[in-house]
Amino acid sequence: MKVGIINVTGYAGVELARLLYRHSGVEIAAVTGRSEAGRSLGKVFPHLADIDLTIGDQVGDVDLALSALPQKASAEALLPLIETGVKVIDISADFRLQDAAEYEQWYGVPHPAPHLLKEAVYGLPELHRSAVASTRLVANPGCYPTSAILALAPAVKEGLIQADIVVDSKSGVSGAGRTLGLTYHYSEANENVSAYGLNGHRHLPEIVNELASLRAGWRPAVTFVPHLIPMTRGILSTCYASLVEGRIVSGEKGKEELRLLYKDFYKGEPFVKVVDEPPQTKHTQGNNYCLIYPTLDLRTGRLIVVSCLDNLVKGAAGQAIQNMNLMLGFPETMGLEGLALYP
Amino acid sequence: MKVGIINVTGYAGVELARLLYRHSGVEIAAVTGRSEAGRSLGKVFPHLADIDLTIGDQVGDVDLALSALPQKASAEALLPLIETGVKVIDISADFRLQDAAEYEQWYGVPHPAPHLLKEAVYGLPELHRSAVASTRLVANPGCYPTSAILALAPAVKEGLIQADIVVDSKSGVSGAGRTLGLTYHYSEANENVSAYGLNGHRHLPEIVNELASLRAGWRPAVTFVPHLIPMTRGILSTCYASLVEGRIVSGEKGKEELRLLYKDFYKGEPFVKVVDEPPQTKHTQGNNYCLIYPTLDLRTGRLIVVSCLDNLVKGAAGQAIQNMNLMLGFPETMGLEGLALYP
Amino acid sequence: MKVGIINVTGYAGVELARLLYRHSGVEIAAVTGRSEAGRSLGKVFPHLADIDLTIGDQVGDVDLALSALPQKASAEALLPLIETGVKVIDISADFRLQDAAEYEQWYGVPHPAPHLLKEAVYGLPELHRSAVASTRLVANPGCYPTSAILALAPAVKEGLIQADIVVDSKSGVSGAGRTLGLTYHYSEANENVSAYGLNGHRHLPEIVNELASLRAGWRPAVTFVPHLIPMTRGILSTCYASLVEGRIVSGEKGKEELRLLYKDFYKGEPFVKVVDEPPQTKHTQGNNYCLIYPTLDLRTGRLIVVSCLDNLVKGAAGQAIQNMNLMLGFPETMGLEGLALYP
Amino acid sequence: MKVGIINVTGYAGVELARLLYRHSGVEIAAVTGRSEAGRSLGKVFPHLADIDLTIGDQVGDVDLALSALPQKASAEALLPLIETGVKVIDISADFRLQDAAEYEQWYGVPHPAPHLLKEAVYGLPELHRSAVASTRLVANPGCYPTSAILALAPAVKEGLIQADIVVDSKSGVSGAGRTLGLTYHYSEANENVSAYGLNGHRHLPEIVNELASLRAGWRPAVTFVPHLIPMTRGILSTCYASLVEGRIVSGEKGKEELRLLYKDFYKGEPFVKVVDEPPQTKHTQGNNYCLIYPTLDLRTGRLIVVSCLDNLVKGAAGQAIQNMNLMLGFPETMGLEGLALYP
Repeated sequence: MKVGIINVTGYAGVELARLLYRHSGVEIAAVTGRSEAGRSLGKVFPHLADIDLTIGDQVGDVDLALSALPQKASAEALLPLIETGVKVIDISADFRLQDAAEYEQWYGVPHPAPHLLKEAVYGLPELHRSAVASTRLVANPGCYPTSAILALAPAVKEGLIQADIVVDSKSGVSGAGRTLGLTYHYSEANENVSAYGLNGHRHLPEIVNELASLRAGWRPAVTFVPHLIPMTRGILSTCYASLVEGRIVSGEKGKEELRLLYKDFYKGEPFVKVVDEPPQTKHTQGNNYCLIYPTLDLRTGRLIVVSCLDNLVKGAAGQAIQNMNLMLGFPETMGLEGLALYP
Repeated sequence: MKVGIINVTGYAGVELARLLYRHSGVEIAAVTGRSEAGRSLGKVFPHLADIDLTIGDQVGDVDLALSALPQKASAEALLPLIETGVKVIDISADFRLQDAAEYEQWYGVPHPAPHLLKEAVYGLPELHRSAVASTRLVANPGCYPTSAILALAPAVKEGLIQADIVVDSKSGVSGAGRTLGLTYHYSEANENVSAYGLNGHRHLPEIVNELASLRAGWRPAVTFVPHLIPMTRGILSTCYASLVEGRIVSGEKGKEELRLLYKDFYKGEPFVKVVDEPPQTKHTQGNNYCLIYPTLDLRTGRLIVVSCLDNLVKGAAGQAIQNMNLMLGFPETMGLEGLALYP
Repeated sequence: MKVGIINVTGYAGVELARLLYRHSGVEIAAVTGRSEAGRSLGKVFPHLADIDLTIGDQVGDVDLALSALPQKASAEALLPLIETGVKVIDISADFRLQDAAEYEQWYGVPHPAPHLLKEAVYGLPELHRSAVASTRLVANPGCYPTSAILALAPAVKEGLIQADIVVDSKSGVSGAGRTLGLTYHYSEANENVSAYGLNGHRHLPEIVNELASLRAGWRPAVTFVPHLIPMTRGILSTCYASLVEGRIVSGEKGKEELRLLYKDFYKGEPFVKVVDEPPQTKHTQGNNYCLIYPTLDLRTGRLIVVSCLDNLVKGAAGQAIQNMNLMLGFPETMGLEGLALYP
Repeated sequence: MKVGIINVTGYAGVELARLLYRHSGVEIAAVTGRSEAGRSLGKVFPHLADIDLTIGDQVGDVDLALSALPQKASAEALLPLIETGVKVIDISADFRLQDAAEYEQWYGVPHPAPHLLKEAVYGLPELHRSAVASTRLVANPGCYPTSAILALAPAVKEGLIQADIVVDSKSGVSGAGRTLGLTYHYSEANENVSAYGLNGHRHLPEIVNELASLRAGWRPAVTFVPHLIPMTRGILSTCYASLVEGRIVSGEKGKEELRLLYKDFYKGEPFVKVVDEPPQTKHTQGNNYCLIYPTLDLRTGRLIVVSCLDNLVKGAAGQAIQNMNLMLGFPETMGLEGLALYP
């Protein structure tokens, strides 16, 4: 089958190209990128020189298109494709929130295609597998939300925790994209760590909505603070919440019970691993895994869940391909078998 | 006056040497370090070659000694000095907890000098300035506790927050010291982030005890999770707590009220700056500042305080010199005037 | 076919596992590693958890064995396998020098199997493809020599340069392996660069011998200085040599002539790319390419060649698999199709 | 005395501010910076908040001005100051080359003040101390040239080496300044190394001219290749040249003779240290030292000299202050006593 990558020139776009190149079920038929249109892909990105394509301005005739454009531009570019029957996966935020007013509140512009919000499926396969498989429009989750939602979903679903939740995330700099900025200038970002988005990060509503949808009549009070740390790839989220009394046995046994509950929740999932030791982002570098370590702070009766993933793979391009596999009827892991690049 | 550095060969020790070299009130009379005894300081640490000293095994006749030994060894080395009237500052954890039983619980050995615990002063000058000035034994605070306690003290003291507190800290690798370990091997630590100490880190009781002491009849339920991030120096702590209702006005005005309250609390402090933008560890690299940014998550009614410092300066050697200045009657900032190394 | 990895616990060993896992022609039948024998591979290296193997102490019955042991231990481990007809690839230095006396001079021990030196083939496929295909014993080249020899071979072969050659190499820290050392301690290696091996690095004789073998009656005078730089993977070598007068046209045209000569030399090579812009190690991260950029310093009449590769792939495990493919009759690129992990 | 910093907003400018703040002989009277004029220094650079100054657009009435402007703009800004009798130090390249035609060839614009070229002094105090002390116009050397010239000067002066010289330099990213560019974007520069300036870097003529001036009738053929490596501060240059036969005794004794010759050459120099082990940039982080390690490649009869320094201190702001001290009659080391920030 033929797929197209819209805006191959950002980091999510090149990562799509890297992964799709080894996918045996699809062919990259077209790649677009306005600023570099007309140049060969290998000239702009030497590591992609084995892919013999010229960057164009339209994806043309494809079975499925993946958009790595920024929000607003993404929906605008996908609209005509959807109308002509092309299946699409939007890596931008345009179809992640189902409420156009909420979208406008967070993104500052009216939604470009509000009529499609209802049918868009939030592409977290672990929670919405069958809906993804049958839709024509997937909203690929944000990198932070993927790590936070997967970390908390079992606890929320099982009613283990109260509504007060803190998500403290640490991200590598590639999450900020390829666009220049002083904050991402090497000499500024290196040997430095800082918090940002303290007035509310755009990924917050995704996290809240998805968690809320797991438990009827429940709405969490999430504080989410992302941090920029000096590495290229990887997100590690540390999530905190107070336990509902009596749901988990007390003491060390509770930790074990918790871990079993998580393992059971994610049983059979190809890309979520509940691990027995606190995970490291290095173990996800370049692969599509989300590693999750749930534990208890016995002194305070608090749940702690640490999760990590590669922001460009499970946090973006890899998850998009996982969704694509579901939409096109391929095995879910196809093209995503690569192991982490360690060390 | 003459001072001695006990165990100059760890990172806190060399940092003491770097800073004391430019202190105009004291002379480094002796440096010790068992494994390197007999070698010149400049041979072992080329950047200290301007300090013409041989590493010995005793500090000899000094007015004040600073110990950068590991716990237990530190108290044992300081005991004879204290008995002969030498003022001492212990950078290890040996005198930070006032309760010998609590010490044994966290450090796994009986306390080497329990009779001195009562008189030891926790050397956080911003909270215990006058006690530091009049003691002969200072317990220099841990790096994480310094960042967490200074971040939360105003809120605790003023009764703004409830007892449920989360402290999520990110530390550069030098905090783990100069002793080798796979976790700190370059190829493992680079491009990696992980949480540790999830069953309880030794710095937790310091944080709890100091915060508790600020408010009569109140004892916080602190969850503290440290993280290792790929940089050499710096700690950034993000602290979360639920607000007590009605203590701060609601809305954006509350943020301003909060910041003023913090600024007032630290008014005149030479080394604590309440800043108007989220701080970066880079702005503390090599200097003795703790930068603090308090704000509110208006959606959830939660206090967020971000603090940062250089773990080897305000988190260790610099704070020790600040304490030394108080103990010896020097201006508190003497020898600590250097600005951050930026970028 | 069945292959075994001897000493999977070093960085070359885990990289072999990562790459072989996606090789469709072979099965990893056994992995050994003395210190971790008895543990599952996924426990020791979580990113390899998808490979269901227990670390053993013998490779057992395999068609081909790849050894990532240190020198001396490697030859000793391979000897019995060779005698029973197993094909072997030695990633250590044991079979790289054909002269046992030269081996002893550089490695400080008598050669463990001098009778095999004659038949061992230096596994640089670009220079010894057919010999590799027909041998039972391949000496996999060192990481530095691979970058230097490939950079200089065309110029040497064509008689473009005089004998005075300088090779200045910059390597990421993973080249030093997984064994701990102060030089590789994160806080020491980060934000630091240094030269080493100034009295002669063990990779020098490999470089000299291979270059000498390209031109009858010619022996180069190579100065080789490796440097350690703060990154995990990658080697970039900058090679300098004086031009033989009259072999290349003068002026800018000479640069073009040189590039064409290099492109012609490596025509059809699947893993060597002569590039038109100075290359970056980032474009080789995780892949098996060696990128080569030859140019001229017109002011001084000097050849400059910049080459780069991933020290653990084309500089170790990837090249070993390239050799394995030749020895076992697979397409040379099998299992090595992965693109670089960028950014 | 009063000094002014012109263009405080680049990395050389902020480094001047950091160092001058602790200089006891001068007061920073004014700082300029067009893009940030009107803002307080501490708002733009929080780590400089202790310096109570507003960024202006003119330095006004000062005894000496230091310019950290880019070339051309720098000479233009300094011209009126020089005419009114202010002593100036130009950190840009404008007055480094004495030949206006050579300047135009390398910098692509006619020289803004050719009439001043004759009297400008190349501010490398180790070679031009007395001239610096008596001039009103110092051209502060480039960072690369400082490391290369100091590394090679003794060998050139003593006639030890032939004219063929290779200088291979590795620089941290701060050398490229604070201006944004894809090459310096964190995700691109991190975990990456590359060569640049292969057609001739602007620092080459400085190196050639200074070395030539050390030996009558001699002109070196220098190939200079700079490299960008993933760290913030530091330059390490590895210099190679063929020995003139018979000038140094052969064998290991020659290395010792060489080292003594270098130590003698730099005897009494406060900021150049000839070291006995290969140096590391980490030992110069933040200080004004240039560390030099000369040795011989006995196999090829080649001199190797490794030198390192902090590109923003001895390579820019520190050297400027060293020059200022000479021009204003202060002890040469004043304000430059800080030790390296290690680790």
